[in-house]
Amino acid sequence: MDYSFAKRVQQLKPSVIREILKLSSDPNVIPFSAGNPAPEAFPSEQVAEITNDIFGNNPIGALQYSVTEGYTPLRNLLKDYMKNKHNSFKETDELIITSGAQQVAELTTKALCNEGDTVICESPSFVGVLNAIRSFGVNLCGIPLDQDGMNLEKLERALKEEKNVKFIYIIPNFQNPSGITTSWEKRKAIYELAKKYGVMILEDNPYGELRVSGEPIPTIKSIDEDEIVIYAGSFSKVLSPGLRVGWCVAPKTVCSKIIVCKQVSDVHTTILSQLIADKFMRDYDFDSHIAKIREIYKIKMGIMLDALKKDMPSSVTWNIPEGGLFIWCDLPKHADMLGYCKETVQRGVAVVPGNAFLTDENLPCTSIRLNFSTPTNEQIVKGVEILGKTAKELF
Amino acid sequence: MDYSFAKRVQQLKPSVIREILKLSSDPNVIPFSAGNPAPEAFPSEQVAEITNDIFGNNPIGALQYSVTEGYTPLRNLLKDYMKNKHNSFKETDELIITSGAQQVAELTTKALCNEGDTVICESPSFVGVLNAIRSFGVNLCGIPLDQDGMNLEKLERALKEEKNVKFIYIIPNFQNPSGITTSWEKRKAIYELAKKYGVMILEDNPYGELRVSGEPIPTIKSIDEDEIVIYAGSFSKVLSPGLRVGWCVAPKTVCSKIIVCKQVSDVHTTILSQLIADKFMRDYDFDSHIAKIREIYKIKMGIMLDALKKDMPSSVTWNIPEGGLFIWCDLPKHADMLGYCKETVQRGVAVVPGNAFLTDENLPCTSIRLNFSTPTNEQIVKGVEILGKTAKELF
Repeated sequence: MDYSFAKRVQQLKPSVIREILKLSSDPNVIPFSAGNPAPEAFPSEQVAEITNDIFGNNPIGALQYSVTEGYTPLRNLLKDYMKNKHNSFKETDELIITSGAQQVAELTTKALCNEGDTVICESPSFVGVLNAIRSFGVNLCGIPLDQDGMNLEKLERALKEEKNVKFIYIIPNFQNPSGITTSWEKRKAIYELAKKYGVMILEDNPYGELRVSGEPIPTIKSIDEDEIVIYAGSFSKVLSPGLRVGWCVAPKTVCSKIIVCKQVSDVHTTILSQLIADKFMRDYDFDSHIAKIREIYKIKMGIMLDALKKDMPSSVTWNIPEGGLFIWCDLPKHADMLGYCKETVQRGVAVVPGNAFLTDENLPCTSIRLNFSTPTNEQIVKGVEILGKTAKELF
Repeated sequence: MDYSFAKRVQQLKPSVIREILKLSSDPNVIPFSAGNPAPEAFPSEQVAEITNDIFGNNPIGALQYSVTEGYTPLRNLLKDYMKNKHNSFKETDELIITSGAQQVAELTTKALCNEGDTVICESPSFVGVLNAIRSFGVNLCGIPLDQDGMNLEKLERALKEEKNVKFIYIIPNFQNPSGITTSWEKRKAIYELAKKYGVMILEDNPYGELRVSGEPIPTIKSIDEDEIVIYAGSFSKVLSPGLRVGWCVAPKTVCSKIIVCKQVSDVHTTILSQLIADKFMRDYDFDSHIAKIREIYKIKMGIMLDALKKDMPSSVTWNIPEGGLFIWCDLPKHADMLGYCKETVQRGVAVVPGNAFLTDENLPCTSIRLNFSTPTNEQIVKGVEILGKTAKELF
């Protein structure tokens, strides 16, 4: 049969990262390409205890159908957490549980955007969400990042000139892939611009708890007096990505549309996963767990930064993020970046070509993304040595 | 802010059933409205053992990111199961794990249908999938059901006359809500019509294993020589709906588009759920578990059918399904069906108004759907007594 696919998905390709992940499941390849939490960051024993307890006390509740909005006690816990810790939940908001923060982006696009509408994003930005937006036939308009977040002049020009802009997608903390943190001044300025031009903001904050230096900055959601911000939170980096539990805080009217879209998609998020997340936050010391994984990532990031300094030629530069899981490296301007990535993977180190994170993959790009959470400390040292040697040979 | 939602979701409403479910969480209301498996049908102890074992042997594997296609050993197990038990997996097919069978319908629509395209479905049909199709701005064309499945003349007329028909949605076994099973002759005829008019078929088979009488009928997928059938399977009725594990068998080209759509939606299905399903099928006697739950539902269905016979006035009629979870009742032609449903819920019995399952809720309808898996046996007897008494008073 000559299959006729929907227009919206005809150009859609699998995420480069997910495909590289598959290749780099080869245990001989050092995985700087993934975004997986470090194995030692999982509270495996506690989760084992928790599930034991769940099946001892409430097995049917863990296996039966549940409501689309999510497990009420977990929702209440997260409402308190968002209110008390982040000042990011108001009476006019609703909070629902989603199957990861990725689902928040997909449902938000489905609820807000017609085909041909535009979403403004940081450039570069997280390819998973860019693809979710693309999958509804929505155009992306990328705004280059300064060291403190989106370039405001270019953002305002885009808001003025682009047609049917529905929302601005932003990862304010330790952005994936750039590592950049949007400053407090820029957060306020971006909010004011969104308000001025009548568009919403999707604030994606999966890495917020993974700060290893500097001072926490309030969320954009915390200044959302005008009910224009949708906030996506996630347990993926602080508990487990495999459980697929995230959450969405959004103005009630918007949230009700997102709920209907979720209902027709996966009905509800795995209830066992929700019960585990609920019990973990409730019965264990969440703050000291976060402190522990922060320490793990601080060490790993430090090892990678030291190794880069030691092994990379001076023509290669990189940022020093205040948290998160990634370091963004700029190869020399004339470099054949894709050729470099192919060469390093043959030498046993997988990295992600930077163009994967652009709104148009064909734009010139000489950056690569390095992840330090997935490899072991030994692999970080060895892998950067190979990256440095290859760079010295090629550039 | 004056929110501007996407056209596709402007008319979308929460599923009547999910909303009634919320109301009927009142423990004083007898739930004939749900579709939940009976508590005694859950292999709770085995799942407790399995999770214990998973966290003992492979805790990181249960918590880490996984691939979009699903856990490979489970996919292989299901490929064998579909091949050997249902003759429904060929070399040209691919099988992936989804977050329930509902997700198969949603991803299939997203991959195949542009806004304004048409999907042909049985009338009545499962509202969850109808809403998934509606959520992409796709038109529904309902084909009335004869006692052995869709009316073929009306199906062919629709295939001729409707514009841009992309697929036929069908639940061949113990259809939700009608309880009707499509005969072998009609399955073949529907397949031939789909082939003739160049449209695909989405065969949704969540209840197939729940046969309590009569002989099993081969799937439509089993005669899919032309690679036009997408098959949706589910663990929801045979293991647990809360785990959210289903699967999709589809021609490779189609499956690859579905995978990309899943990747941008929830990245992958909860890996812990997949490990549980895998281990349950592998290490326990799946067939004898199925035999056990069949017996449970045979008894419950029998109790409801006996009670209906005893308590309902002769003006109310119903079908006798060969399996599944639902009985479809026709009230007298002149009956105020919605008034009846409102009255029974006030008297403590929740049922689903039949119009919820129509392609146009405003069409005349005097049917209601009764579920016998969720209520206890005592509740079935008491609930039907109330339904009968109310019917005698009102009709």
